[in-house]
Amino acid sequence: MAVAGAGLAGLVAARALRRAGLRPLVVEARDRVGGRTWTRSVPGGAVEAGGQFAGPTQDRLAALAGELGVATFATHHAGRTRIDMAGGRPAYKRAKQLLAELEEMASELPRDAPWAAAHAAEWDAQTFHDWLRDRAEPDAYGVLRMVTTAVFAAEPAELSLLHVLAYIRSAGSVDLLTEVAGGAQERRFVGGAQELSVRLARGLGAGDLHLRSPVRRVRQTPGGVEVDARNLTVRARRAIIAVPPVLGDRIEYDPPLPAGRAELHRRMAPGATIKISCLYGAPFWRDEGLNGSLMRDRGPVTVTFDNSPPDAAHGALVAFSQGDDARALARLPAGERRKAVLEVLGRYFGERAARPSDYVETDWTAEPWTRGCFGGNFGPGGWTRYGPVLREPFGRVHWAGAETSAVWMNYMEGAVRSGERAAAEVIAALGGS
Amino acid sequence: MAVAGAGLAGLVAARALRRAGLRPLVVEARDRVGGRTWTRSVPGGAVEAGGQFAGPTQDRLAALAGELGVATFATHHAGRTRIDMAGGRPAYKRAKQLLAELEEMASELPRDAPWAAAHAAEWDAQTFHDWLRDRAEPDAYGVLRMVTTAVFAAEPAELSLLHVLAYIRSAGSVDLLTEVAGGAQERRFVGGAQELSVRLARGLGAGDLHLRSPVRRVRQTPGGVEVDARNLTVRARRAIIAVPPVLGDRIEYDPPLPAGRAELHRRMAPGATIKISCLYGAPFWRDEGLNGSLMRDRGPVTVTFDNSPPDAAHGALVAFSQGDDARALARLPAGERRKAVLEVLGRYFGERAARPSDYVETDWTAEPWTRGCFGGNFGPGGWTRYGPVLREPFGRVHWAGAETSAVWMNYMEGAVRSGERAAAEVIAALGGS
Repeated sequence: MAVAGAGLAGLVAARALRRAGLRPLVVEARDRVGGRTWTRSVPGGAVEAGGQFAGPTQDRLAALAGELGVATFATHHAGRTRIDMAGGRPAYKRAKQLLAELEEMASELPRDAPWAAAHAAEWDAQTFHDWLRDRAEPDAYGVLRMVTTAVFAAEPAELSLLHVLAYIRSAGSVDLLTEVAGGAQERRFVGGAQELSVRLARGLGAGDLHLRSPVRRVRQTPGGVEVDARNLTVRARRAIIAVPPVLGDRIEYDPPLPAGRAELHRRMAPGATIKISCLYGAPFWRDEGLNGSLMRDRGPVTVTFDNSPPDAAHGALVAFSQGDDARALARLPAGERRKAVLEVLGRYFGERAARPSDYVETDWTAEPWTRGCFGGNFGPGGWTRYGPVLREPFGRVHWAGAETSAVWMNYMEGAVRSGERAAAEVIAALGGS
Repeated sequence: MAVAGAGLAGLVAARALRRAGLRPLVVEARDRVGGRTWTRSVPGGAVEAGGQFAGPTQDRLAALAGELGVATFATHHAGRTRIDMAGGRPAYKRAKQLLAELEEMASELPRDAPWAAAHAAEWDAQTFHDWLRDRAEPDAYGVLRMVTTAVFAAEPAELSLLHVLAYIRSAGSVDLLTEVAGGAQERRFVGGAQELSVRLARGLGAGDLHLRSPVRRVRQTPGGVEVDARNLTVRARRAIIAVPPVLGDRIEYDPPLPAGRAELHRRMAPGATIKISCLYGAPFWRDEGLNGSLMRDRGPVTVTFDNSPPDAAHGALVAFSQGDDARALARLPAGERRKAVLEVLGRYFGERAARPSDYVETDWTAEPWTRGCFGGNFGPGGWTRYGPVLREPFGRVHWAGAETSAVWMNYMEGAVRSGERAAAEVIAALGGS
């Protein structure tokens, strides 16, 4: 078996294939495993440069962590959140009402088939911005824009209304998406989320993982599939492509992909995120009753969290710049970027916050083997046109990756589920052929 | 000099470079020149499989044809157009009113910078569907949907309102976009539009055109650019990339493209078009007072034209299937596609129309070195985010192609202008360095 991509989805698929007695060969473009999870070491400690959170109802992820012996701990959230949004409480309240309305609309969607909802065509023909425009005064719009960029790393104008609803449906509720305690940001992994992939990779056969091997061509033959990577060709009965759609589009397929699948790869646009980690001697903000969280409606940074290690041996704040804020930030020279980010941290968490011992920026849109985070989003027309082929195998080629999961799409949970699903497809196909 | 792409834009650029005393080497992925213009020979004659029309105000295209000795002739349009649209005249009248309103909004746009218009953010945050929804009753919507797919090969829900306005502004008026006489469909080229590229290619130096050479990598060095194609590497001082954005995205760049440019390549989505040519012994519909044109608000075919040669030595009808109609048609087996198209021609032009001597389908979305026609369209958020870098050189790399023209964007006129503009940039840069 050939698996393209050694992120969580590909490695989970490979594990399932091994358990079924098959031999998966995993090829990966980068020099590391983990995909959109990535622990980067710096003098002051290690930072989570990528996906890092786990939460309630993310059961497959929890089971995997348990089996691999990767412990979790609660995200530090005790204390006051710094909130700076125009309109204050009334705007916040109105935003909550609109989110409740969206949640109700989302409940109409079949979770596995958002395109089949009664109002799918209507909801997929408009942007989320359009829906908001007639309903939210500027201040409430500001709150919802902040929430939108925090969840999708994209602007309301870039997203189909149906995509927003499909996302809510996929996670289960707005609270599950947005909350720390009781939501998707509730827990973190000891040693970092990449550790899951590192341990999964250890379970592969010797020589069965090929790093620095971007896949260039996937050729289907009468009897199998040839996956050409830079350094090797893997011949297999079936292949699982476990990379984001935007990278799936960079592979040459022979025979070519059907037009609908090819368009899906192009139209599912990854969000724009710059994640900044700042390390300090201690989480000093806790002494002042602050929890390290910030929510504001202006860039360059709109959201922060306390990202200190479980023993608080040092302090860490993680700051997110997303959507247009990230695009604007990326255009500045490095020194000005740093200054702009630290100015925000200093303003809300005090002068010490502006002087971290380590400052680590990860611009995911500039990573050639990712090209944007958190995941792929559909603009108007995407779900109704291309949703139906999101998980549809193309001959002997199967698709995995967080984008392809109907449950917790674009989250680590979705990645795990997608890898399990794709492996099950392959195993069933081999059993039958 | 290196030029990637031997369509009209690349070949016009190459000609301008040669005239300035430089030596352009042109590399082209296909086994032919002409890009999105393509004359296909069949037993009954030749058919225009791609771009084919010229019209008033397309001055650079007219000048080029004149210089190359390619004559034009008037598109046959005498007689009655077959029109079949729900709502009849009132719907048509309302649609015209809305188009006039759009034209007035478009007049606010700076032609070279739609993103700088006073209402740019607001107009770019909504789909064209959204704008129409509150203004057009279903019947008028149907008329405008037909016009939209005919002009953009995309659905109203896929397009940013600002994109629709930018297009109108780029062409000059709605009538210039949509009319035959007095508009962009007014004239045709004797021998087919591809003939322009064929003659331009003859003007290149011996051995300076490399077909079957898709560009894989563009590497900038301190002194120049290396363009790696499948069979050769061209080393040059500057390079012009004259391929559609969707193909520009398939090239590897070293150093990598800035995020904004890379996103532009991904977000400018080409339309979906299947163009069908039917040949007959004679243009028999003319005898019945019909001009061979059809406009209807349902697929699989919404628009046809009389595409007979200037001497009417035989008859030809060309039928367009676009947007979702084209996507649906592409999913049918070949025999059913043919049956569905001929059923439409038979219904409006008589039984003989359903029995052509030759039937030639060109599905542009399935052409790997095109990936969609007519050209790239921006969904919501595209123009305001990526418009400013549409023509911005990346170091020693310059961009041409119909999508990059502020005037007659996505038309042959735009292609010619873009080639001239990119060559002028290169010549100016060399003069100054």
